[in-house]
Amino acid sequence: MAKPRVAVVMGSDSDLPELEDTFQTLRALGVSFTVDVISAHRTPKAAHKFAETAEEKGYKVIIAASGGAAHLPGVLASLTTLPVIGLPVTTSSLEGMDSLLSTVQMPGGVPVATVGVGGGGATNAAVLAVQILATSSSALRKKLAAFKQELGRAVFEKSKQVKKEVSG
Amino acid sequence: MAKPRVAVVMGSDSDLPELEDTFQTLRALGVSFTVDVISAHRTPKAAHKFAETAEEKGYKVIIAASGGAAHLPGVLASLTTLPVIGLPVTTSSLEGMDSLLSTVQMPGGVPVATVGVGGGGATNAAVLAVQILATSSSALRKKLAAFKQELGRAVFEKSKQVKKEVSG
Amino acid sequence: MAKPRVAVVMGSDSDLPELEDTFQTLRALGVSFTVDVISAHRTPKAAHKFAETAEEKGYKVIIAASGGAAHLPGVLASLTTLPVIGLPVTTSSLEGMDSLLSTVQMPGGVPVATVGVGGGGATNAAVLAVQILATSSSALRKKLAAFKQELGRAVFEKSKQVKKEVSG
Amino acid sequence: MAKPRVAVVMGSDSDLPELEDTFQTLRALGVSFTVDVISAHRTPKAAHKFAETAEEKGYKVIIAASGGAAHLPGVLASLTTLPVIGLPVTTSSLEGMDSLLSTVQMPGGVPVATVGVGGGGATNAAVLAVQILATSSSALRKKLAAFKQELGRAVFEKSKQVKKEVSG
Amino acid sequence: MAKPRVAVVMGSDSDLPELEDTFQTLRALGVSFTVDVISAHRTPKAAHKFAETAEEKGYKVIIAASGGAAHLPGVLASLTTLPVIGLPVTTSSLEGMDSLLSTVQMPGGVPVATVGVGGGGATNAAVLAVQILATSSSALRKKLAAFKQELGRAVFEKSKQVKKEVSG
Amino acid sequence: MAKPRVAVVMGSDSDLPELEDTFQTLRALGVSFTVDVISAHRTPKAAHKFAETAEEKGYKVIIAASGGAAHLPGVLASLTTLPVIGLPVTTSSLEGMDSLLSTVQMPGGVPVATVGVGGGGATNAAVLAVQILATSSSALRKKLAAFKQELGRAVFEKSKQVKKEVSG
Amino acid sequence: MAKPRVAVVMGSDSDLPELEDTFQTLRALGVSFTVDVISAHRTPKAAHKFAETAEEKGYKVIIAASGGAAHLPGVLASLTTLPVIGLPVTTSSLEGMDSLLSTVQMPGGVPVATVGVGGGGATNAAVLAVQILATSSSALRKKLAAFKQELGRAVFEKSKQVKKEVSG
Amino acid sequence: MAKPRVAVVMGSDSDLPELEDTFQTLRALGVSFTVDVISAHRTPKAAHKFAETAEEKGYKVIIAASGGAAHLPGVLASLTTLPVIGLPVTTSSLEGMDSLLSTVQMPGGVPVATVGVGGGGATNAAVLAVQILATSSSALRKKLAAFKQELGRAVFEKSKQVKKEVSG
Repeated sequence: MAKPRVAVVMGSDSDLPELEDTFQTLRALGVSFTVDVISAHRTPKAAHKFAETAEEKGYKVIIAASGGAAHLPGVLASLTTLPVIGLPVTTSSLEGMDSLLSTVQMPGGVPVATVGVGGGGATNAAVLAVQILATSSSALRKKLAAFKQELGRAVFEKSKQVKKEVSG
Repeated sequence: MAKPRVAVVMGSDSDLPELEDTFQTLRALGVSFTVDVISAHRTPKAAHKFAETAEEKGYKVIIAASGGAAHLPGVLASLTTLPVIGLPVTTSSLEGMDSLLSTVQMPGGVPVATVGVGGGGATNAAVLAVQILATSSSALRKKLAAFKQELGRAVFEKSKQVKKEVSG
Repeated sequence: MAKPRVAVVMGSDSDLPELEDTFQTLRALGVSFTVDVISAHRTPKAAHKFAETAEEKGYKVIIAASGGAAHLPGVLASLTTLPVIGLPVTTSSLEGMDSLLSTVQMPGGVPVATVGVGGGGATNAAVLAVQILATSSSALRKKLAAFKQELGRAVFEKSKQVKKEVSG
Repeated sequence: MAKPRVAVVMGSDSDLPELEDTFQTLRALGVSFTVDVISAHRTPKAAHKFAETAEEKGYKVIIAASGGAAHLPGVLASLTTLPVIGLPVTTSSLEGMDSLLSTVQMPGGVPVATVGVGGGGATNAAVLAVQILATSSSALRKKLAAFKQELGRAVFEKSKQVKKEVSG
Repeated sequence: MAKPRVAVVMGSDSDLPELEDTFQTLRALGVSFTVDVISAHRTPKAAHKFAETAEEKGYKVIIAASGGAAHLPGVLASLTTLPVIGLPVTTSSLEGMDSLLSTVQMPGGVPVATVGVGGGGATNAAVLAVQILATSSSALRKKLAAFKQELGRAVFEKSKQVKKEVSG
Repeated sequence: MAKPRVAVVMGSDSDLPELEDTFQTLRALGVSFTVDVISAHRTPKAAHKFAETAEEKGYKVIIAASGGAAHLPGVLASLTTLPVIGLPVTTSSLEGMDSLLSTVQMPGGVPVATVGVGGGGATNAAVLAVQILATSSSALRKKLAAFKQELGRAVFEKSKQVKKEVSG
Repeated sequence: MAKPRVAVVMGSDSDLPELEDTFQTLRALGVSFTVDVISAHRTPKAAHKFAETAEEKGYKVIIAASGGAAHLPGVLASLTTLPVIGLPVTTSSLEGMDSLLSTVQMPGGVPVATVGVGGGGATNAAVLAVQILATSSSALRKKLAAFKQELGRAVFEKSKQVKKEVSG
Repeated sequence: MAKPRVAVVMGSDSDLPELEDTFQTLRALGVSFTVDVISAHRTPKAAHKFAETAEEKGYKVIIAASGGAAHLPGVLASLTTLPVIGLPVTTSSLEGMDSLLSTVQMPGGVPVATVGVGGGGATNAAVLAVQILATSSSALRKKLAAFKQELGRAVFEKSKQVKKEVSG
């Protein structure tokens, strides 16, 4: 497989189940990736080093998943100019509102490209990463087009099934 | 100036003042852009047409600003595989929480790269767009590095001033 | 059964269980309906086509159920002048607040008649649809009056039971 | 002018400014209406009487504006089978969230067709009322179609102006 | 047992489990009560009649439990000058925030004495009712004093147990 | 004037403007009261002493206004069995949500009769106090009945004015 | 073991499970502590006495856990100048938002050092207590440094495991 | 003046006005301090260096003020074992809820001692810092006791004034 262009980082290994859709979507779109557990608060130096060397390692996009006071995406974004995608992880209290606001409300100059908390967020982190790579790859653009078409096809299929089940 | 690679779209001309920082940052980074007012709800066909032709027009990234039931970024994202950056606009009621949630909580497969509501959001929409373009442009990467350095320098300058003003 | 005058659309087949009360209430009131799964984001063209042809198909009211960044009701409302009833679907995170705000906070000129998230919302989507049809049907007005009376009767019945169970 | 088919009711005369867009939109669409101040809590009997006689007075739709513990739309809906449109009014505290939730979260069987708090809500209450009337009036359907077209035209106009003002 | 001076009303029989602590506390304090299921929205006339005859029936305080768009306490308060205690019932969505705001945010002149949502709310509705009765009954004041003392004693007991279980 | 039966306490003199309606309503209903500034956190012993001697001083009801982490009503309620009415004061941040939740969410056994934040809350604290006193005073019941009637009359008056101003 | 310098207080024995991490962390860092159940509202005098004698008993820091209208930390802070750490306990309704706001939003002059609701809050209450003690103990500073190092080491370990499990 | 034992850091010079009470309170309590503007996101290396050298510079406590995605306190806490006090700064959107949650919801092992957003938060950051220093300084304990007494005295003074202004 090709050299990974996407780096997936999670703040805690407890975030792993929420990332399953991210991994699966990246694989489905044929984009190789690396996986790391790096905590902005427990391994701050590792976080710095990771962000500072990300570009030279050939990563083009970083996906950072984090919950609660979710600082990981912002910390990485502070030390690289690569696009950082933030995936707010559902927490046990406060319904993930803390994760979302900590991720998205970044100060001017240091953006985090935030996707949704819960639901399709994990899938979308992967799709967004590929969309970014696709800005300079017609091969990936084709894959995304096919992926999009398949999304629609699946809905049509479901619609047929539902029409059968429900009689109005 | 070069052919615009960033398209800035707003849902209403009342969003214009909130976008000032977006325009200024894109200009500062030397990235040309187009501006349109397109309403997902009042001009839905124009929105569809815009999204469907965005790629062939040469746009690489779309920035969509919208408030309230902020559907514009999602509607555009549904019809293109270009990365769509969503800028939730502050609304008079509900503190912009409606804009933020309507923009970020997209279903799996159709991401909107959301930046913050209020504060640095408008600047960040621009920076994120340039970061995405920079994944395939070393010239832009250099500009972003300089921009980042300048951000830091300004803080050091302010720190000196504040130290003079406040005596502990 | 008569030609359907109500169209029930859901953004995902996972919304089906939440719509059970909608179907049951429409049936109880003798109003036939169609069912479709149409995603504003995954099948945007189907959504457009559905909305644009809804009136000529004879539909008088559309019920659209959607969760998260719930754009479906608004997208349909943007392309038809038929009344669109929005049913915000409970989501796993954020308690359905995202669904509610994305559905109700529409811009001026393009209303979505929103009913509650969770609880009686699904029933109410159906009742509201019939109330709208009843503005030009005395037969439906009679059915609604009987339905309303039955609602009250059931409460009186429950009150008797509760009085027996609880001794003050 | 024709016999009013829309009744606009507000819970307090302090809600009057928020209803200006409602009145203007109804006039623009040529639909006559009545106006009343009726408080669910201060004039409960008047509220009951209003709701119970609304149908015989020839009203087809009721628009009820109310803030805080906004019970007026629900109280009216409890005593009529006419469609009741609820307009949650912005309050000084809590950003209108109390008004919105009190209006929309109705129990099963007694819907309130809720429009947005702040922003376009007042306009939308009127448009929704006319959409409901239009289900049995082709004349109104034509007016709504023209209104919709004008909404779009205004956006195109604004887009041109904005393009002139902003150079990318 | 004496003529009931407290009337407990719930908006739905599904609220019954949440009221268990209310009943138990009233019994523990020796205050007799009546129980009714009355829906502000499904049995509005019964609600009116109940409120209007409450005083002549000898009730001194009304406890009204309700969820969602919780209008019952306010509707009763609009038609009596007896103190009405509102108990917001936990709902499946929105964490009971809708119940709380709908109950407490009453317009000037028509108060609802609101107790907490979830937790000790049901107990507190009963205690508050007895506190109100106790303003003119030294016997009840003594019972409340004893009740208060017992509350404290139970905490001391628990503290001893916890100290045994946990070794610092 | 008679011996005060209502004690109004505020946590800070900055709450004074929010209490103007409380004072005015108590005066209008002919109920004398005392006023104190007592801080649960800055004068905790005074708060204890106040609560413990409230009954012997002849107070029948306590109104406690407080903002932020609004502990005053709860602290007073912990040391008296008199009914304590909590008035959550609007704060500069968080829209008074902190005041409301800190006031209303009391543990079982120690209720605070909470009225609304902002809007009619200050008036309602007074009305509720008088309603409680009226449970043992037919003279006050008559005053409350007249007050209620006047509330309604004012609405009718306003309705006439509004009807003149707005032509449908 | 040495004389306890940390006092852990909980408002109810039902908070005990949430404090398990607090106890364990204090033990791991070798800091002895006392445990008490003291309710601000049910045992207010005990709370006063506890706070007033805390300093003379040799405590240096107080950890107070409380939920709902969480007044315990604030009540203790009002009667001592020792640092009081507030641990907001998750409640069944409102997701612990009530606990958090009641704990943190203290008036000027009477701080509560608040840690997070849910998640790592219980651990952090202990770590913060030890950090405070460590300001005058180089032995504790060393323990904290080792604890911090171990936190990081555990993340590195997890990262290795995750890399094995997930293949990009 | 003595060597500063408290370091006050703000994420942006725009936070300066909110810190005025912090400075004033530290001065009033005779505790010298340093002031710096350090941005977690714009000057991440300076933030790291600051935190890593804070202990050897002789600081005993750090106060970090930050708004929006408020990462500064957490970033500092990740690299020092000194107690870090987080002051969430009010932001233009979302009422400072983002600042509060980003500051307080830290992962286990890395606490931030959070004080309130708005209101008395800035004063409390200073008082808490001095309380921490006072755990090993009887001189500061005396100052805090006097400060506390003065807080109470001021309330008594205000109470007298209010009693004169308001006649019950």
